[in-house]
Amino acid sequence: MATRTERLATWASGLQYDDIPQDVIQRTKDLFLDWFGCTIAGRHHPAVKAIAIFVQQMGPTSGKSELVDHELGFSTSPAFAALVNAASSHVVEQDDLHNRSIMHPATVIFPAALAVAQDLGANGRDFITACVVGYERFHSTATGGVIGVAAATARLLGLDSAAMLSSIGTAGTQAAGLWQFLLDATHSKQVHTGKACFDGIFAAYAAKSGLLGPKDVLEGPKGMGVALVPNTPIPSAIDTDLGLDWAVLGSSFKWHASCRHTHPSVDALLQIISTYGIKFEDIDSVVTRTYQAALDVLGLSGRGETIHQSKFNMGFVLAVTAQKGQALITDFTEEALQDASLREFQDRVKMELDEEINAAFPQKWQGKVIVTCKSGERYEQFVEYLKGDPQSPLTRTEIETKVKALAQYGQVKDTDRIQQIIARAWDLENQDSLREFWL
Amino acid sequence: MATRTERLATWASGLQYDDIPQDVIQRTKDLFLDWFGCTIAGRHHPAVKAIAIFVQQMGPTSGKSELVDHELGFSTSPAFAALVNAASSHVVEQDDLHNRSIMHPATVIFPAALAVAQDLGANGRDFITACVVGYERFHSTATGGVIGVAAATARLLGLDSAAMLSSIGTAGTQAAGLWQFLLDATHSKQVHTGKACFDGIFAAYAAKSGLLGPKDVLEGPKGMGVALVPNTPIPSAIDTDLGLDWAVLGSSFKWHASCRHTHPSVDALLQIISTYGIKFEDIDSVVTRTYQAALDVLGLSGRGETIHQSKFNMGFVLAVTAQKGQALITDFTEEALQDASLREFQDRVKMELDEEINAAFPQKWQGKVIVTCKSGERYEQFVEYLKGDPQSPLTRTEIETKVKALAQYGQVKDTDRIQQIIARAWDLENQDSLREFWL
Repeated sequence: MATRTERLATWASGLQYDDIPQDVIQRTKDLFLDWFGCTIAGRHHPAVKAIAIFVQQMGPTSGKSELVDHELGFSTSPAFAALVNAASSHVVEQDDLHNRSIMHPATVIFPAALAVAQDLGANGRDFITACVVGYERFHSTATGGVIGVAAATARLLGLDSAAMLSSIGTAGTQAAGLWQFLLDATHSKQVHTGKACFDGIFAAYAAKSGLLGPKDVLEGPKGMGVALVPNTPIPSAIDTDLGLDWAVLGSSFKWHASCRHTHPSVDALLQIISTYGIKFEDIDSVVTRTYQAALDVLGLSGRGETIHQSKFNMGFVLAVTAQKGQALITDFTEEALQDASLREFQDRVKMELDEEINAAFPQKWQGKVIVTCKSGERYEQFVEYLKGDPQSPLTRTEIETKVKALAQYGQVKDTDRIQQIIARAWDLENQDSLREFWL
Repeated sequence: MATRTERLATWASGLQYDDIPQDVIQRTKDLFLDWFGCTIAGRHHPAVKAIAIFVQQMGPTSGKSELVDHELGFSTSPAFAALVNAASSHVVEQDDLHNRSIMHPATVIFPAALAVAQDLGANGRDFITACVVGYERFHSTATGGVIGVAAATARLLGLDSAAMLSSIGTAGTQAAGLWQFLLDATHSKQVHTGKACFDGIFAAYAAKSGLLGPKDVLEGPKGMGVALVPNTPIPSAIDTDLGLDWAVLGSSFKWHASCRHTHPSVDALLQIISTYGIKFEDIDSVVTRTYQAALDVLGLSGRGETIHQSKFNMGFVLAVTAQKGQALITDFTEEALQDASLREFQDRVKMELDEEINAAFPQKWQGKVIVTCKSGERYEQFVEYLKGDPQSPLTRTEIETKVKALAQYGQVKDTDRIQQIIARAWDLENQDSLREFWL
C-alpha cells in the first residue's frame, strides 16, 4: 500500500507537458513573468548582495546558471544561482501567493527550476512542467518550498518515482524557517527562500546520486507534519485531486506592495475612497476587520521602522493607501517612514478579528473596512475577492505594467531588454533553452 | 539590557586562546583526533559519496579546503568540504557526545572549523579557540549544531559581537532535522551533520558581508525555543557560567560502535559477563532498565535491517555484546545481521523504563541490566558512569587504538600517515597551519 507521499512522488515524476491543461500553462507563464519582475526589483538589496558574496566565496564562479545581477560578472552552478535569485525575488514583497496554503510559490519554484533548466539545457516545455509540479501540494514558503523545489528539480533531472520520493524526503528533513526576523527587521526572509532553493536542489541532485531520503516525510510519525505543523492540515490534501486541482490556478498575484494580509483592507479602503470621494485628510479613524492569521503575522513587526517592516504594519499600509490612493512599491520609501502625517494616521487604524471572515480563511482572503470621517460620516466596505486573486487575476497588460515598474525600481536602464524578456515569457513553451535569460 | 543570546555572542567573539584552561585545550585535542578517526572510517559510505558528487557538480573543484576522501581528486571551498566531511564523520556512529545536551558536537564543529581554518590559513591556536566556542551551549546535533558551526566560523573570521549575533541568528532560522529517516534506514543523519556545517558557514560568512540575523533567535517569541523545543530547557543555560563550565569537558567518547543510548546497557552487560564468566549460550533473557529518551530513540528503527539501524536496536546490540564480548565497529557486519543466533537472542532482550535512572538523565547516562541464565541464575549490574564519560574519558592510548581501528575500517593502507596525523593532533596548538591535513 503506497503512502500518500509515494502517490504524490509517482504523479510528480510522471506528469507530462501534454497532460497539463492550457489554462494552467498560460497562468504559469503569467506567474513566471510576474516573478521575473520581482527578482529584478530586489537585486540591489543588502541581503541579496551578502548572499551573492557568499556565492563568490564558496561557489564556482563559472557555470551555466545565471545570476539576476550581472554586475557581479559571473555565472555559477544552479544551487548557487538559485540561492541568490530566490533571495532577490522575495525582498520587495511583490511575488505571488497560493491562497489556500498561504505560501509564496514563485519565489522558490522559479529560481530553482530556471537555474537547473539553464544548467541542464532544458527547454521551455520541460521548464513549465517542472514548475507546475513544484507548485503542487507544498505548504508554507520556507518549510514547504524546499519540497516543491526538490520536486521541480527532480522532474527536470528526470528522476523516477523512487528517487523523486528520496528527493522529497531529503528536502523535508531540511525544512526550516522561523518568523523571529520580523521582530527586529533582519534578513531571514531572504535566507528562507534562497536556502529552500539550495536545499531542494541538493535533495534532488543527491537523490540522483543515490542518497536515500525518508519515504514518508510528510505524514510519518517523526515527519514534518508532526514536528512542524501543530494543527496538522488534512493529510488527504497530499494526494487528492492530483492533476485536477492545480495549485498554479489557485495562486494570486500581488498588486499592492505590502504583505498580502493587508490587501483585503487596502482593496476595501480604495473602494471607499473612490466611491465616496474621501480624502486622506477627511478620515478620522479606520477599523479593519480581518482573520486571525493576519493578526498573528501583522502583529510581529512593531510600528514598521524599516521599509520592509512597514509593509507588514496594517496602520501604516492603510495610511499610505489613503494618502497616495495606492500602495505600490514606489510608495514605500524612507520619506514615507519619516512622514509625520502617515505616522499619525497609522495610530488611528485599528485591527479587529471578524469571526465570519476568519471562518472562510484561507479559502477566501476577505476583508471589511469601516471608515469614520472627521465630519462624522461612516462608510463600510466588504471585499470578497482581491485584485490579483484566482477569481480576478491580473491581466497580461497589468502584469507587463507591474514588471516594468519593478524593473524601474531595480534601476534597469535597458527597457528594450525587458521587452524582449516579456516576449520570451509569453512564448515560454516554444523556447529551446532558457539560457541567456537575465539582463 | 542585553539578551542572553547577545551575552553569549559577546563571549564567543571575545574568547582568547590564553583564556582557555589547559585541561580544556588538551581535551579538545583528544576529541579532535577521535573525530578524525570517525571521519576516515565513514568515507566510503554511499551517502557520503552522493554528497561528494553534489559538491563536484555544484561547488568549485579547487580551493584550500580538503575533502576526507582524496580519491575524488579535488579540494574545494570550506562550505562544501565541511558538507562532505561532516557527513563522513557521523556515519559509523563512533563520534563524541555532549552528555547534558544529548548532542554530537564533534561531527559538526570540527569539519566546519577545520575547513574554514584551512581556507583562511588559521593556525592551531585559532582553530582550538574556535572549536571550544563551537562546542558551547548549543543543543541537539542538527538544530543546535548549525549554531555551533556559525559561532566557530564567526570566531575564525574574527567577527565582532554584533556580527556574531547575526551569524547565530541566521543559523537559527535554518535549524532543521527530523528523525523520520530512522524508521526506514535512509540517509538523513548524514544530511543533518553535513548541512549543519554548510548552513552555519553560510550564516557566518554572510554575516560578515552584512546579512542581518534575528537578534534573539534562541529565546525570542518566534525563535527556536518556542518553535522547536516543546519543553523548553532552562533559558539561563544560554549564558550562565560561560568560561567556567566548558562543554568540551562535558563531552564523552564513544567506545562501543552503537547508539550512545545503548552504552549504559552494554557496559553493564560486559561487567556481568566478565565478573561471572557468563557466555552467550548461557543467557536466557536480558532486561535492561533505562531512561525515557533511550526508549524514544531506540524504538524507531524496528528490528535493525541495516548495519546503521542495527546499532539503534537495543536487543541486537546486546546480542552482539554477549556473543563477541564487545560491540566495536568491526562487530556490526552484514554477517551479523544474518546471524540467526543473534536475531534469536535479540528477541529475548526487553527494555524497561527505570524511574530513578530517568530522573538523573541527561546529567547521568546510567543503566541497569538484569541477566537471567538458562540455569536459573540471575545477575544484576548497575552502571553510574560509562567508559568514555567525562568522569572516565578514553586515555590517549585508547584514542590512538580507536583511531587506528577506524582507519583500518576506512581501508587506509598508509599507517605511517595515520601516525603523522596523530602526532600533529597531539601538537595541535603549535601547528602554523591545518592545511594538508587529510590523507
